[in-house]
Amino acid sequence: MAVKNAFYAQSGGVTAVINSTACGLIQTARRHTDKIGKVFAGRDGIIGALTEDLIDTSLETDEDIARLRYTPSGAFGSCRYKLKSLEEHKAQYERLIEVFHAHDIGYFFYNGGNDSMDTAWKVSQISEKLGYPVVCVGVPKTVDNDLPITDCCPGFGSVAKYVATSIREAGFDVASMARTSTKIFVLEVMGRHAGWITAACGLASEKEGDPPHILLFPEVPFDPDRFTARVKECVERYGYCTIAVSEGLSDASGKLIAETGSKDAFGHSQLGGVGQVIAQLVNDRLGYKYHWALADYLQRAARHIASKTDVDQAYALGQKAVELALAGRNAIMPTIKRLSDSPYRWEIGEAALKDVANVERKMPADFISADGFHITGQCRAYLQPLIEGEDPPPFKNGLPDYVRLKNVSVAKKLGEFKV
Amino acid sequence: MAVKNAFYAQSGGVTAVINSTACGLIQTARRHTDKIGKVFAGRDGIIGALTEDLIDTSLETDEDIARLRYTPSGAFGSCRYKLKSLEEHKAQYERLIEVFHAHDIGYFFYNGGNDSMDTAWKVSQISEKLGYPVVCVGVPKTVDNDLPITDCCPGFGSVAKYVATSIREAGFDVASMARTSTKIFVLEVMGRHAGWITAACGLASEKEGDPPHILLFPEVPFDPDRFTARVKECVERYGYCTIAVSEGLSDASGKLIAETGSKDAFGHSQLGGVGQVIAQLVNDRLGYKYHWALADYLQRAARHIASKTDVDQAYALGQKAVELALAGRNAIMPTIKRLSDSPYRWEIGEAALKDVANVERKMPADFISADGFHITGQCRAYLQPLIEGEDPPPFKNGLPDYVRLKNVSVAKKLGEFKV
Repeated sequence: MAVKNAFYAQSGGVTAVINSTACGLIQTARRHTDKIGKVFAGRDGIIGALTEDLIDTSLETDEDIARLRYTPSGAFGSCRYKLKSLEEHKAQYERLIEVFHAHDIGYFFYNGGNDSMDTAWKVSQISEKLGYPVVCVGVPKTVDNDLPITDCCPGFGSVAKYVATSIREAGFDVASMARTSTKIFVLEVMGRHAGWITAACGLASEKEGDPPHILLFPEVPFDPDRFTARVKECVERYGYCTIAVSEGLSDASGKLIAETGSKDAFGHSQLGGVGQVIAQLVNDRLGYKYHWALADYLQRAARHIASKTDVDQAYALGQKAVELALAGRNAIMPTIKRLSDSPYRWEIGEAALKDVANVERKMPADFISADGFHITGQCRAYLQPLIEGEDPPPFKNGLPDYVRLKNVSVAKKLGEFKV
Repeated sequence: MAVKNAFYAQSGGVTAVINSTACGLIQTARRHTDKIGKVFAGRDGIIGALTEDLIDTSLETDEDIARLRYTPSGAFGSCRYKLKSLEEHKAQYERLIEVFHAHDIGYFFYNGGNDSMDTAWKVSQISEKLGYPVVCVGVPKTVDNDLPITDCCPGFGSVAKYVATSIREAGFDVASMARTSTKIFVLEVMGRHAGWITAACGLASEKEGDPPHILLFPEVPFDPDRFTARVKECVERYGYCTIAVSEGLSDASGKLIAETGSKDAFGHSQLGGVGQVIAQLVNDRLGYKYHWALADYLQRAARHIASKTDVDQAYALGQKAVELALAGRNAIMPTIKRLSDSPYRWEIGEAALKDVANVERKMPADFISADGFHITGQCRAYLQPLIEGEDPPPFKNGLPDYVRLKNVSVAKKLGEFKV
């Protein structure tokens, strides 16, 4: 194959380490100039491809590309934009191929979650049919940790480390104050459909009595009576109670608890407020003073406390994506393959995109304790290695010194396309 | 003076570095066994003294005391409990002296904010009168940064570093997503009466366009029209808008915005939700999608990203407190004295407790920009050194490895006392 350019796009919610993948990918591509010309990135993800809004990463210095390894967020912009089915919206796929053709792009790297793997797979199919074959490689990324086949998903380990650290620290704080002040602390975390991030909070509790004392998973229907009874027991035993709750906590009928709780002055349901709802419930029933925190984007952007394991895996997947593409492996996704829990050993494996696309991995039932309020030993064994190791960014003026790239646009060659 | 024991108590809301002060104080006392016998700590602060619930810190290993330097929260427990005036509640002061006398305590170290300095001062007065003189030394601590005379207060610098780091990271995240998703991010921070912590968020914005774009101070009456106009301008210019808001944001009449916003299902006002209120306001008026985060206790407990300057100052103040006491300096508080901004140089100074007690330092008016939405150069020059330097704790199993002391009680010698 002659020298071809590559196209790389970031997709969906960004993470603390997706740029580490970009770093691994671009650095590896730069070592193979015999096969890969320039790496173009989509400005704001796949929308950049559809609108021919490409970024020329070759104009970034080696030093700045190296800095991506420790910079959170999506350096080229990401988007929430799902391509429709081939039947429904063939024009979008044809447009992608047209843009790839116009810019001599022979490699497509799509860095995202389920939807993105589906898109990458479809592009691999249609590019053949349209007579412009492109090697399509999916690169996993999602804090939701819900991609199949791969043992874990880059981005998750760093969120896990952040939430476990945060709830440990808040737990120490509340323990100090509980006698005369706050007895209840609630941390609301992400993970609408699966309790991976909630489970990760449990890592902070290493022995009897350590916070967090209660985890509220989206997988376990919320029972206010059982919950408040457990809180009371906990306060009586330890003097305080620290709780992690998933934004997706629901009742037995599947209704989100965040929606049952409160409305704002305009009558809107307050989403992202389940932490407040359950803290207030405890206060109403038991009278304990509470505080609550909503980590929101802080949890997925917190590169300052990223997991080194996560950063390394994210990088390695970007590197491997290029190696697979250079070997002509089409419609594939590099994966993390766990070789052993302790000592933790892993290597890069691979999965066919068609086996990944649209398959959602759930948290195993035996990861949640029988009473539904904590994690099991199996869960701990799985999660523990994913938060191991620190890899702090450099600091300047007391703050993490992250890079902003120049992100220079490539001259357009085609007409407009409406997305 | 013969060998006397010392009493140390932590007071009010705890911080990431109050235990660094405890570490400096206890380590220094251990080097002066010719004058200081044991250091007793109040279990849960001054309540421990009133109830004769003393902790014998001499039973903690040197290694564990050293670990206090990097452990957040109050290792001996703290409390929100203000001693009343001497006239109103003389019995409390007499009880304190009785407990000190019973345990041969000649030094009283009180580690807290305004109220605590007032208490320490009163104890210094009454102990003379009651014929059992005790050397009373106040040791400053408060994330509110509102003690007078001292240039800054231990605990504040670490909160400042945490919030500035967090809003920078979230700002990178939102910048990536803004084209198709979230355009507004709001971080709600502590500081009900003064905007010090809100101002610290501004440090993350080092050049035009850097987040955070808007700071909402408790000192500046909230004007919804001016605010939303500024948000719109910001989104049009940068594509997104990142906002830090103080929990104490109020309208022109002094009413908290958090109280004007929303009520929960039970009709309670939702405090600690001003972030949500102003984010929803933007959504209602401008239609932008938003996310918001509530840092709450995470911000003051985040020892993993403490400021080294803050940790060092907290330690030095604990050390100096003992040195002052040994020199017989009564009714005094060691302070931080700034010698220069850049390079930052500081030394320990001192203030009379009577000059500190009940005096609240406000943020200077010229620290807020003319439009009321950001910090000035003067403010930056003041704040910048306080977040400098990193001093991460050791990690174990991927998490900060904080110490929990044994906290063994001293045998009681007196009857009960009701607090």
